[in-house]
Amino acid sequence: MNKPLRIGIAGLGTVGTGVVQALRQHGDLIAARAGRRIEIAAVAARDKKKKRDVDLSSYRWVDDAAALAKDKDIDAVVELIGGAEGPARALVENALDNGKTVVTANKALLAHHGYDLAQRAERNGTTLFYEASAAGGIPIIKALREGFAGNEIRAVYGILNGTCNYILTEMRETGRDFAAVLKDAQDKGYAEADPATDIDGIDAAHKLCILGTLAFGIRPEIGRVRTAGISAVTAADIAHATELGYRIKLLGIAQRHDDGSVVQSVEPCLVPVGTTIGAVEGVFNAVLVEGDFAGNNLSVGRGAGRGPTASAVVADLVDCAQGLKRPVFGIAAAQMKPAKWADPGAAAGHFYIHFIVKDRPGVLADIAAVMRDNDVSIESVLQRGRNPENPVSIVMTTHHAKRAAIDAACAQIGKLKAITGKPCLMRIETF
Amino acid sequence: MNKPLRIGIAGLGTVGTGVVQALRQHGDLIAARAGRRIEIAAVAARDKKKKRDVDLSSYRWVDDAAALAKDKDIDAVVELIGGAEGPARALVENALDNGKTVVTANKALLAHHGYDLAQRAERNGTTLFYEASAAGGIPIIKALREGFAGNEIRAVYGILNGTCNYILTEMRETGRDFAAVLKDAQDKGYAEADPATDIDGIDAAHKLCILGTLAFGIRPEIGRVRTAGISAVTAADIAHATELGYRIKLLGIAQRHDDGSVVQSVEPCLVPVGTTIGAVEGVFNAVLVEGDFAGNNLSVGRGAGRGPTASAVVADLVDCAQGLKRPVFGIAAAQMKPAKWADPGAAAGHFYIHFIVKDRPGVLADIAAVMRDNDVSIESVLQRGRNPENPVSIVMTTHHAKRAAIDAACAQIGKLKAITGKPCLMRIETF
Repeated sequence: MNKPLRIGIAGLGTVGTGVVQALRQHGDLIAARAGRRIEIAAVAARDKKKKRDVDLSSYRWVDDAAALAKDKDIDAVVELIGGAEGPARALVENALDNGKTVVTANKALLAHHGYDLAQRAERNGTTLFYEASAAGGIPIIKALREGFAGNEIRAVYGILNGTCNYILTEMRETGRDFAAVLKDAQDKGYAEADPATDIDGIDAAHKLCILGTLAFGIRPEIGRVRTAGISAVTAADIAHATELGYRIKLLGIAQRHDDGSVVQSVEPCLVPVGTTIGAVEGVFNAVLVEGDFAGNNLSVGRGAGRGPTASAVVADLVDCAQGLKRPVFGIAAAQMKPAKWADPGAAAGHFYIHFIVKDRPGVLADIAAVMRDNDVSIESVLQRGRNPENPVSIVMTTHHAKRAAIDAACAQIGKLKAITGKPCLMRIETF
Repeated sequence: MNKPLRIGIAGLGTVGTGVVQALRQHGDLIAARAGRRIEIAAVAARDKKKKRDVDLSSYRWVDDAAALAKDKDIDAVVELIGGAEGPARALVENALDNGKTVVTANKALLAHHGYDLAQRAERNGTTLFYEASAAGGIPIIKALREGFAGNEIRAVYGILNGTCNYILTEMRETGRDFAAVLKDAQDKGYAEADPATDIDGIDAAHKLCILGTLAFGIRPEIGRVRTAGISAVTAADIAHATELGYRIKLLGIAQRHDDGSVVQSVEPCLVPVGTTIGAVEGVFNAVLVEGDFAGNNLSVGRGAGRGPTASAVVADLVDCAQGLKRPVFGIAAAQMKPAKWADPGAAAGHFYIHFIVKDRPGVLADIAAVMRDNDVSIESVLQRGRNPENPVSIVMTTHHAKRAAIDAACAQIGKLKAITGKPCLMRIETF
């Protein structure tokens, strides 16, 4: 058998120790698949004394992870520190500059600096693997980079944040409001103490940015992902969506129009109940790829956590051991073009709109008139609650309409006297 | 850019012309992903005059596909002739013996001769790609060979035949019987004039055999896949399953028990309505992989047809152009061990049983007594129709029970005087 692949692991949290565990538990199996053994040459983390549930005593401990970048005993650096800047970025850059292969789970780094890293890897005759950066339990990076290589990809849709999908599922099943379910998820460890990165859609946006880059051969620009989170989704919206035959999902959407322009967003959307993607519940992630030859492909799996993320890191290490050296984003960096960004207002589709109104005669007529004046055709209307004392809900779904028209209509309707609060507007995606 | 990959395509039916079309339509895109151009050096088929919707006049025509195996102008042979023996087998063997890479969509060939071909490829320093052999629109071969390389795979479940899934979906949606729906599917071109390979589960068994081989690192033995088709599934069974909250799917199942023994089968099974796999309808295929680190992963996509199959063939060609040279089944042939086959009777689970009985007092009591005597615990019972003149249905689902016990109970019950016809027994799979 060939000589072992020697790796250094930087970061020994849940994922790092998971990788150690997988390599140890499946050493022979992984060696058979990799064509050689994968050996841990060194491990590095901030705090050597921290209690970890994996015995690390047999590995060389390195206090400063940065040292792994030029460690002569290491072929590949596994970066599991996290963060778009600071030590993670420095380690990855220096490791690539020293010709080492890098395996990372760092979505923020890729979304912010992916193009630079792709150029850097190429310049140094090496590459960077990042299967664990998005939907760990779904080998979607490999699928987009290799499996769908014969396709022009038209769109990628993803449920990319397990915390959000768990919260939305819980809200539907229990009828409780966002804040209560979030609190509960935090108590159970399904949501972070500081949940902003998850619930504001930032984590999903990082992942979508990576998938869109791979799908369309463009340069990643995280600033061009329109991002909205789930904190404004109410129990009422979930109940209305259910009544209309939909589920609410935080969807990442990357679409390529016929003219080659691209649009990327992360926002809560309605998807039909009876579809496979509508059936993706709880902490599960899902990615739907629309290829022009393959057709629609949906993959569902665990997005985060120790096992799935370790599984993705090890798959990358096996590719590395096998000598796979594809360009970072599947095509040479020189061929990655800046995207031509589509006008988001030009996007068209079906929409769900929830108005809170004072229950007075004629409100619906006023709303409908504004819709008509903006060329938005209404598909269905629900009026819930009859109560002259308190605000009530008017919920409507539209036929195919332009986003700009919907936005204009909502702005006008927002000025009607009977309207209280901001209307809730969500896309309906039917695939 | 590197020198082109020169390919010869043998077989110019739906898939072969689809591959030509993809390579032509996406030539630049595919070259960017492959790192070099993929050029068609020759095409071969039985009948040059056959009308095809792709212009082949610019390619060298070879009358005898066998000649491609030693064609000096060809790096890779694409075998799209089909069949486990005859010209397809001869071409693939000779091409490998001549050190050429082979790309094939031939599931029967792989299921029957996979181990020999793996050895042959290795002996000649080349390899064989077969992404198109199972669930073309889902890159599942790559996922099992590479994406889940860090996992011990516990099980693979698949809806692997689009014709069967289409028929079962139509039966449910229209309430019609198998024969009527099959006839209709044949008229529409969704089922072959000779449908046996599809409806008897043979096609699905070939595919499952390949997936099980990859998942468990065993030698393929198509004879060890217990295979039953869908022709015995009645409209009544489908209605009962729906009433109980299930869908009927022709499921391929490959499972690895804790003792390392393996069991493989293809048979109609009940799966819960609310699950993602239960939502896979019509011609779609789905594969569920249970990895010990990744967890459960379900992929849904188109299984057959021109576009999806061409997509899979081109992905293999891109891998080939990139110089990927993994062993055929992901591990060296010498490491592929003969499977230890589990006793199918030892398998346990929940079951659905449908008896047709004469409507006499005490029938249910008699059936229940036999069940009890065989240690099978009943979970639910439906008795449908009250009609002393005609046979009526008794449908039951069991709690967790051994297959051998169920089989014994059914055999005894079959001998009861009130029972007419053979009971219909199906597994319930809940994942």
